[in-house]
Amino acid sequence: MIKKYDFDGFENPYSTFKRKELGERLARAQRLIGNLSIPVLIIVEGWESSGKGYVIKDLVRELNAKHFKVSVFENPTEEEQRRPFLWRFWNEIPGKGDIAIFDRSFYFKLFNDLTIRDEELEQNIKEISSIENQLLDDRTIIIKFFLHQKEETQQKRINELKEDPYRSFMISERDENQNDHYNQYLNHFDSILEKSDFTFSKWHVISSEDKKDASEKALGMAIDLIHQGIDRIMGMKNGGQRKELRDYSPEETPLDNVNLNLKLDDKEYDKRKDELQVEAQRLAFQLYTKGIPTVLVFEGVDAAGKGGAINRLTREMDPRGYEVVTTSAPSELEKNHHYLWRFYKNFPKKGDMKIFDRSWYGRVMVERVEGLAETEEWDRAYDEINQMEKHLHNFGTLVLKFFIYIDKDEQLKRFKARETEPDKIYKLTDEDWRNRKKWDEYIDAMNEMLVRTNTEFAPWTIVEGQQKKYARIKVLETFIKEAREILDKTD
Amino acid sequence: MIKKYDFDGFENPYSTFKRKELGERLARAQRLIGNLSIPVLIIVEGWESSGKGYVIKDLVRELNAKHFKVSVFENPTEEEQRRPFLWRFWNEIPGKGDIAIFDRSFYFKLFNDLTIRDEELEQNIKEISSIENQLLDDRTIIIKFFLHQKEETQQKRINELKEDPYRSFMISERDENQNDHYNQYLNHFDSILEKSDFTFSKWHVISSEDKKDASEKALGMAIDLIHQGIDRIMGMKNGGQRKELRDYSPEETPLDNVNLNLKLDDKEYDKRKDELQVEAQRLAFQLYTKGIPTVLVFEGVDAAGKGGAINRLTREMDPRGYEVVTTSAPSELEKNHHYLWRFYKNFPKKGDMKIFDRSWYGRVMVERVEGLAETEEWDRAYDEINQMEKHLHNFGTLVLKFFIYIDKDEQLKRFKARETEPDKIYKLTDEDWRNRKKWDEYIDAMNEMLVRTNTEFAPWTIVEGQQKKYARIKVLETFIKEAREILDKTD
Repeated sequence: MIKKYDFDGFENPYSTFKRKELGERLARAQRLIGNLSIPVLIIVEGWESSGKGYVIKDLVRELNAKHFKVSVFENPTEEEQRRPFLWRFWNEIPGKGDIAIFDRSFYFKLFNDLTIRDEELEQNIKEISSIENQLLDDRTIIIKFFLHQKEETQQKRINELKEDPYRSFMISERDENQNDHYNQYLNHFDSILEKSDFTFSKWHVISSEDKKDASEKALGMAIDLIHQGIDRIMGMKNGGQRKELRDYSPEETPLDNVNLNLKLDDKEYDKRKDELQVEAQRLAFQLYTKGIPTVLVFEGVDAAGKGGAINRLTREMDPRGYEVVTTSAPSELEKNHHYLWRFYKNFPKKGDMKIFDRSWYGRVMVERVEGLAETEEWDRAYDEINQMEKHLHNFGTLVLKFFIYIDKDEQLKRFKARETEPDKIYKLTDEDWRNRKKWDEYIDAMNEMLVRTNTEFAPWTIVEGQQKKYARIKVLETFIKEAREILDKTD
Repeated sequence: MIKKYDFDGFENPYSTFKRKELGERLARAQRLIGNLSIPVLIIVEGWESSGKGYVIKDLVRELNAKHFKVSVFENPTEEEQRRPFLWRFWNEIPGKGDIAIFDRSFYFKLFNDLTIRDEELEQNIKEISSIENQLLDDRTIIIKFFLHQKEETQQKRINELKEDPYRSFMISERDENQNDHYNQYLNHFDSILEKSDFTFSKWHVISSEDKKDASEKALGMAIDLIHQGIDRIMGMKNGGQRKELRDYSPEETPLDNVNLNLKLDDKEYDKRKDELQVEAQRLAFQLYTKGIPTVLVFEGVDAAGKGGAINRLTREMDPRGYEVVTTSAPSELEKNHHYLWRFYKNFPKKGDMKIFDRSWYGRVMVERVEGLAETEEWDRAYDEINQMEKHLHNFGTLVLKFFIYIDKDEQLKRFKARETEPDKIYKLTDEDWRNRKKWDEYIDAMNEMLVRTNTEFAPWTIVEGQQKKYARIKVLETFIKEAREILDKTD
């Protein structure tokens, strides 16, 4: 992509326009995407000292400051290193109608590591392709610029900056190092650009030999690419689905095979419970000391006993080490972003445990059944979820998902009990009764979910919930087994 | 408070109850505050190795995990050090109906610094008293525990932990250091506890010589204190205001004296604008390199030209260094917290600039005039805002507030112009017309605000907005003057 780049062949078809004029046209494009509620992500990558700052300044100059944000990504801070690779980028994705400009991006780490192993590179590119794909599917326009310059130009710019008393601090070892090994980096960049030049999201290499030229080209291309993006999205909207919906006919319906007769007698329950809770605490503490993050997901039919199971699981654990995250209907701000955005924010740091009482699976259950998500949206969510959980897994996260099941009669019994017990009445809502009416539809959605998101790296455990005691013990035992396994691997 | 503490006189009036029973009673108290939408903050401070973790575990054991959160405050991370002292605590304050437990708190820094200067201690205590006061006024229940132990008990516990292969890492230099200088710390703690034992928010010292005893006492007291807190709040609710509203009769009405004839001719404007923008950029860059955070607030009547002024101010600045924060109606989550919460989250790190296009002043303007805040709420907001801005100032933040004024006729002219210009129509909303009907009420509120929050550390600049060009130059010049001043001081 850049190895044989012809600097002299750099054309600037926008040079007939003034930058101010281009800026104003970009501002109009911004109002357009604002009206259409389309998010725009502009990535500006390139050599060190290639003028990224200069180009970004020109890009935003005429924009409405309320609706753009520039995010600078440097080497990850200590805090950021304790999170999965994509975490900090997900936090900064644009909302609907906004423009996010990334000064460096998720490519930064790859570009800067000459000695990255092929395997790791492959995995990172895969993860990057999944975030780009997911944002594109969510109607985001992604524009990727790479600012390219000659070895001698870089050298000259580094020298100039070094001599400027106010700006010399901007030159780091990284700049000098790149310049000292220009050809090595050239090959490295080229190969990464090649690998990440996805058909759905291409790179645009811009020569920054002349910064003014580069700015004009970036402005002009941004305008054109936004218009092309709008065109693509309008196509999506007018029924032109991105892809065929997967023709899904369930071969398995795991919930039909749940054995609802499983029971424990009180004596056995009491005996095992105490031991298991102490052991769960011991293992949670070890996960903490070894810096292993844990994500536990609890889903199930209403009144299946999620809260009780969580409570019994965490009973002996140090409350400073875990947090229960409740998932309810998304806020306006959350609706304004990709639906996974709010969950990414909440993923645990190394050593922490987050327990999700309901989760991102709402997308393929309640949002699907109640028509809160379009078919195309929930249909692609299975892949998106699998990719996200894979990303957590790749970071070393222990991901466990529990689905607690009770049958329709048992649910009715529990609803009625809640109506009469003063300490429980707060648990019963109108929504519960509403969902109950759609029991069969929910079961279908749940069956499909359990099959399509049951992966090796994030498997479902179906918990027979008819007897609460049995369910609680099974959750404890499963956690213990899986925690031991991951701990053994890290020994 | 603890220097003459009589360990043998430690009574545990709750010892007749089982911890489980106390835990369940606390869970009922949790449901009660949930029903009443009251936030509860429990602070657990104390000696190192005094069993804070043990007590906290017992406190939460029976609670509904969805509605409590334990936050651990260690030495501030690099990231946290770049924010004002109270920033990380504000982020973790409880929402309505939730219990937040702080394992260590804003007192941590004071407790640990034996050599803290009197002046700094004084200032920090003042800031802490202001956050506690503000939360109390917002109907929060605050409970402050200090776990106390004898020198030899601490020594014994440190030794025990050191010998435990799994837990020895929990012992830090801090533990040993405290024990080595037990008496010095005893005096130091005592003096801080004394100084922060506010009549409105008292300390509760608990002997942790016996951890089980300590847990029972913490549980029992938490239950009692929550009930007392509810009592206090019910008193507030039933018209029993916390204090008399300040009898405010405006001596000054600054907006009556705005000279609306101030103008610049086009030639002068063009000439000065370019120079000033470059100078503003230069100074913004210096603020950045010196690590000075900047908060700029823009308020004004509708259509006064806030957006245009911001745009001209930032035109030459590096967009990676500033962010424009738009303030609109609060979300559900934001409404669920103290109204300053969402602004605290957004305050700049060292070296960053945040520009607020509307701000926390909404409380005493739109929320006051439209009846969205109760009288008692907006009335106390003047003090709260002054305290918050003082806190920013103490951290070294440059705080500048611009109020742009145009008269009623000019507003009408601009509304009409917006109606007809395609590039501007999006700026005009029904709300603008609605607000215009209450012009006089808004002006009264604005006058009062401009007088009551015009402080030495965060002064208002009233900008004559009748001619946009004049206003833009004044904003630029004011920023330049103030930036130079703070930069001179730090040289």
